[in-house]
Amino acid sequence: MFKRAAFAVSLAALLASTAVAQQQPPAPSPAQILAAAPKAHWRAVDPDRTLYMDLDRGRVIIELSPAFAPNHLENLKTLVKERYFDGLSIIRSQDNYVVQWGDPEEGEAEAKSIGSAKPALPAEFTRKSADGVVWTAIPDRDSYAEQVGVADGFPAARDPKTGETWLVHCYGTVAVARGTGADTGSGVQLYAVNGHAPRHLDRNMTVIGRVLVGMDILASLPRGSGAMGFYSMEGQRTPISRVRFASELPEAQRIPLEALRTDNETFSKLTELRRNRKDAFFQVPAGGIDVCNLNLPIKGG
Amino acid sequence: MFKRAAFAVSLAALLASTAVAQQQPPAPSPAQILAAAPKAHWRAVDPDRTLYMDLDRGRVIIELSPAFAPNHLENLKTLVKERYFDGLSIIRSQDNYVVQWGDPEEGEAEAKSIGSAKPALPAEFTRKSADGVVWTAIPDRDSYAEQVGVADGFPAARDPKTGETWLVHCYGTVAVARGTGADTGSGVQLYAVNGHAPRHLDRNMTVIGRVLVGMDILASLPRGSGAMGFYSMEGQRTPISRVRFASELPEAQRIPLEALRTDNETFSKLTELRRNRKDAFFQVPAGGIDVCNLNLPIKGG
Repeated sequence: MFKRAAFAVSLAALLASTAVAQQQPPAPSPAQILAAAPKAHWRAVDPDRTLYMDLDRGRVIIELSPAFAPNHLENLKTLVKERYFDGLSIIRSQDNYVVQWGDPEEGEAEAKSIGSAKPALPAEFTRKSADGVVWTAIPDRDSYAEQVGVADGFPAARDPKTGETWLVHCYGTVAVARGTGADTGSGVQLYAVNGHAPRHLDRNMTVIGRVLVGMDILASLPRGSGAMGFYSMEGQRTPISRVRFASELPEAQRIPLEALRTDNETFSKLTELRRNRKDAFFQVPAGGIDVCNLNLPIKGG
Repeated sequence: MFKRAAFAVSLAALLASTAVAQQQPPAPSPAQILAAAPKAHWRAVDPDRTLYMDLDRGRVIIELSPAFAPNHLENLKTLVKERYFDGLSIIRSQDNYVVQWGDPEEGEAEAKSIGSAKPALPAEFTRKSADGVVWTAIPDRDSYAEQVGVADGFPAARDPKTGETWLVHCYGTVAVARGTGADTGSGVQLYAVNGHAPRHLDRNMTVIGRVLVGMDILASLPRGSGAMGFYSMEGQRTPISRVRFASELPEAQRIPLEALRTDNETFSKLTELRRNRKDAFFQVPAGGIDVCNLNLPIKGG
């Protein structure tokens, strides 16, 4: 896996064939598990809550959550439909923390009117329960929450005593930047996690979705040299050419993505295989998994 | 913290001064805790186990572990002193996984003799105990290990039943690439974690150290377009101009770094403050911390 991959693969194949000879079928690989998944285990990613953010380096595709951040999603729809983000830029890239974009810092020339969007919204940090959400718990320990799992396809946590449920900060999680007050965010600045999960932000920020495609583009941006990774020098910011909902584009121009549902055997098999890898490379199975290391597969595009 | 930082800071200062007026001293900030740390809470980073890897984008500084990977460290010393890495390159950048460098893939023209270094070493995945190591446990739950903490300044885990102790894969962790067999690594290829901690690699790889400075350089490298993020196209690889131990350079050219020791109150206060942030931005304290989110401060340079 790490060195001389071709050798590793052929040895694994050899071991697999030995296993067959001993009448122990080899454990299926993640690719085989996914290939065998029935159609019903996948869901189409809804174009009405899929954002395309176009940069000169490529397109970033974000799935948004209507169940956890309905008001922020509505406001974001207004902002996008009134072309608020077009011509703005990535304003921050802090190593092992977040990449942030949208509203320029106060007093800057690029500042734009937010049009008919709301300038601030009540926080949507958590949801009272997982009712109405596809909630799939995993049994593994977590450093931050009593229970973790996946909610509507997003990494999430839940308090089993109260039922309170929230989306968590993992690599690729997208959330709403805000000021000191909980109710000061609007969606004019968003951020995506570009490093190890900053889980202390959970229940303190309105998480609105996750990056499905193009996180490599955001994560490889040069880090900003200002405080907290803000770009402080002329020409460092990456311009955003346009942000659109997929549903705004003609159907032929949309990227038809499907996401694996989590309420089925395909997902539980994949997760178990990730918890305890079976290929010859691994000497010691992990025996557990961090919610931010779950495999949440996407296909198409 | 996230938006209009200046405002956030001034509000925090206002709240702090209110607290003073009410005769409740404000909680010290991490910077204040560090500034108050006595000299004995810091240790000089040993130049004999500090690597400088020079790229055109800048210098990456890595601290190596003599306690967990003594044989790999010896072999790496031979490789570095015989200039094995000079002129080789970064060969892999896989998003949210690892950046890897050194030995080109088999059959490539850049391949170099390993000189008097050993071509393969017995695995150093774990250590029988934490004896002889500065081991600082934290009480927090972990998805992968029964106990986690810091060993000699590196994020680590321990099995309290057997005493077995190992360094863990966090953002910036440096380890030895290998083939399928456990005993096939030598140090000719090393990797650093560039995303969310791939903790399933713990106890399966020889972890040799961590990046103290310059992880931003490695993490912002463009991702490789080949399988597993290997660079498959001409000109994509970043050349390594030279790799040296700090102790090989004249003293005036060394970067004198100090690392906070973890067996003291400064570290425990810092960790507690990270577990439960006190500034006005946070509505809900996390109440716990992931071993890969610990603050392991470095100063100097």
